[in-house]
Amino acid sequence: MTRSGTASALMTDLYELTMAQAYFALGMRETAVFELFVRRLPRQRRFLLAAGLEQALEYLENLRFRPQDVAFLASMGMFPEGFLDHLASVRFTGSVHAMPEGTPFFANEPILRVTAPILEAQLVESRLMNIVHLQTLIASKAARCVLVARGRRLVDFGMRRAHGAEAAMFAARAAFLAGFDATATVEAGRAYGIPLSGTLAHSFIEAHDHEVEAFRNFVTARGRRTSLLIDTYDSEKAAQRIVDLARELHASGSPARIQGVRIDSGDLAAQAASVRRILDAGGCEDVEIILSGSLDEHRIEVMLAAGTPVEAFGIGTRLDVSSDAPALDMAYKLQEYAGRPRRKRSTGKQTWPGRKQVFRQRDAHGQLAGDYIALVDEPADGEPLLEEVMRSGRRTQRTPTLSEIRERVRLELSHLPASMKRLEEGDPGYPVRISPRIEALAASIDVTGD
Amino acid sequence: MTRSGTASALMTDLYELTMAQAYFALGMRETAVFELFVRRLPRQRRFLLAAGLEQALEYLENLRFRPQDVAFLASMGMFPEGFLDHLASVRFTGSVHAMPEGTPFFANEPILRVTAPILEAQLVESRLMNIVHLQTLIASKAARCVLVARGRRLVDFGMRRAHGAEAAMFAARAAFLAGFDATATVEAGRAYGIPLSGTLAHSFIEAHDHEVEAFRNFVTARGRRTSLLIDTYDSEKAAQRIVDLARELHASGSPARIQGVRIDSGDLAAQAASVRRILDAGGCEDVEIILSGSLDEHRIEVMLAAGTPVEAFGIGTRLDVSSDAPALDMAYKLQEYAGRPRRKRSTGKQTWPGRKQVFRQRDAHGQLAGDYIALVDEPADGEPLLEEVMRSGRRTQRTPTLSEIRERVRLELSHLPASMKRLEEGDPGYPVRISPRIEALAASIDVTGD
Repeated sequence: MTRSGTASALMTDLYELTMAQAYFALGMRETAVFELFVRRLPRQRRFLLAAGLEQALEYLENLRFRPQDVAFLASMGMFPEGFLDHLASVRFTGSVHAMPEGTPFFANEPILRVTAPILEAQLVESRLMNIVHLQTLIASKAARCVLVARGRRLVDFGMRRAHGAEAAMFAARAAFLAGFDATATVEAGRAYGIPLSGTLAHSFIEAHDHEVEAFRNFVTARGRRTSLLIDTYDSEKAAQRIVDLARELHASGSPARIQGVRIDSGDLAAQAASVRRILDAGGCEDVEIILSGSLDEHRIEVMLAAGTPVEAFGIGTRLDVSSDAPALDMAYKLQEYAGRPRRKRSTGKQTWPGRKQVFRQRDAHGQLAGDYIALVDEPADGEPLLEEVMRSGRRTQRTPTLSEIRERVRLELSHLPASMKRLEEGDPGYPVRISPRIEALAASIDVTGD
Repeated sequence: MTRSGTASALMTDLYELTMAQAYFALGMRETAVFELFVRRLPRQRRFLLAAGLEQALEYLENLRFRPQDVAFLASMGMFPEGFLDHLASVRFTGSVHAMPEGTPFFANEPILRVTAPILEAQLVESRLMNIVHLQTLIASKAARCVLVARGRRLVDFGMRRAHGAEAAMFAARAAFLAGFDATATVEAGRAYGIPLSGTLAHSFIEAHDHEVEAFRNFVTARGRRTSLLIDTYDSEKAAQRIVDLARELHASGSPARIQGVRIDSGDLAAQAASVRRILDAGGCEDVEIILSGSLDEHRIEVMLAAGTPVEAFGIGTRLDVSSDAPALDMAYKLQEYAGRPRRKRSTGKQTWPGRKQVFRQRDAHGQLAGDYIALVDEPADGEPLLEEVMRSGRRTQRTPTLSEIRERVRLELSHLPASMKRLEEGDPGYPVRISPRIEALAASIDVTGD
């Protein structure tokens, strides 16, 4: 049932299919150009980070209507047979230009452009957006955590409240490429090679009659370096127990070691400070402190600014659902059909017509200085951000590894102007200009298009 | 890659596996009781609607570690061989008690209870929550739309910005059981039998040089009753074109008919009013008006209160990501192990110990009057809400159809007190009492448990 969903060509909105049928019936087979972009940034974001291209390309490569898909559509009684026959042979044969994953971008900048026969380019709209929207959403949130973490390890803990299995997978991937160090989601470790991290839950402690017994049992049973959760009852008492247990383990010659302690509730900063003192006084200077529980970039920034002793943060729900901005105003719009530029003029939703490129200017230190959105054939200064990644339905570039994308992000984040790295709401003052030719084109369509 | 995620036993947090390994090594094989509940309702919700049980049971029935799962875990080098061998034979052999899908519930009320050997009960935590959390989240949001829709048709339009494919599927299902009439997500139509709805996008209009030509082409190509999108340029001009086209179709004897018009941008209420006047004046009284675009329960309520002429609403992003409350404070906590009640006492996260039942009192008209949370073996008045749905890993009840669940919700919503149906933030004043025996039990554990 749901396991079929992620790979199904029916993972689309019905209107993509009704339009496809109409294009087919009308013989509309010319090339269409659609661009994917975000109309406005959420006020809680000063930049976004493009992500999800890899899964988008996988989707396009594998798009096909299986016999059971066509049979279901036939059972609806609303599609003619000729169209259904045609669907069975549909493959994505078009081109894709896109910003590489991990590229910072801004409102109205196309991050992905599809050029294909209109039936194909239309059909893929819903799922392309579904993939790119989520990963971009999470990567953009995760990048904010990375920017304030001062090198502390960040771990994605959000699977349980992520919106379904694919959301958990995509969140783990997007957070890692944005600079997170690990995830707790095991399947994401397998599928994407992301380092895994995890210790134990309160239930393990509570299944024992005494906390100290739970600690000893867990460490002994694991027989290796492991972390313990110390806030089930009283984290200061627990910290003293950790000190005692560490001595006991050392004396016993066991390979088991206490690597860290996790605190998941209450006043995290205050507990971290007192636990650190207890651990240090007891000779456990090397035992790390891990904090978790309703954390986000704001709480990380405040705790680190206050000097909270901490080596790692587990970030869960607020990352995996991007709780302060759980959706982006992302759109996939027709820019050109049959060689002519097109424009949507619905109130408040106007789009810029034509095939566009984003040119990025940098200062002498590589820092972002401004973007210029122009038509693809316009001469412009700066680095063009959209690259061809697929032609005739096949990839034209080697797929970057997740580590390569992560390294790109590390560089990109180091090149953001200070105003863009701040967490507060507000305009980072980053200039994004539209070329006069695009403006003229828009005006010319406004005169003639209706 | 992601298609394996939804069905994989590795769709779990790493700590479930490290704990499982420790339970195994320590010979901890006694029965554990975990309960799933929401600690606090979001302030934007006056009640929640339980959903997702069907997929939760499917998950438990199908839980198994395939050879490739075990091989991946072995490759991590952190699990002993004996445990990995054991994992391959793990099945869920426990019991599940749960509120039927579609039951309204409140903070601290268990909606699902797992009784199983602790290794099994622990392993399933992350994915059980992942499934039930999302569907409950969306059903609860959708119910609010249904409560204010005054019988207007509601259609889920949210796939593109839902958090991945499974989120889109679960959102379509949860919205439908809560009372929505249809979804645009085709795969959800196939998998769950939900009625599908969809028309066309702006791109179809823009691919034509003239709107009227696009209208005629679409209707003719579809050759049946269909709706048109009229806000690409000017919805009033478009409405007049609809009138003309309707006459033309009628005169031609074509089977094509204009069923409705959709407006997706701008001042929806004002446009609906003027479009309605134009349609009616042109003899198109039977052409329906469909409104969409950033809609939620609040905008529906306001528009209907103002008398906006509308037959259907398309609700997208704000439903599918539950944008005003994108996560619930849901937890899955150990309540009993080896016959002894357990309790978490972490600051701000205390739980009530023991196996619990929720008893619901109703007034003479069936309206909800108050809940009483008691231990399962306590005598109490009212209807017990948790039923046994699985024993020894097998279902004990016929699975209700989605239509049956939807009908239950319809009844339940009609029995909500008026204070619970209001959209504003605020306490609905619904009494949920905890039995004195639970309180006494909690106090006794507090004395002895540390």
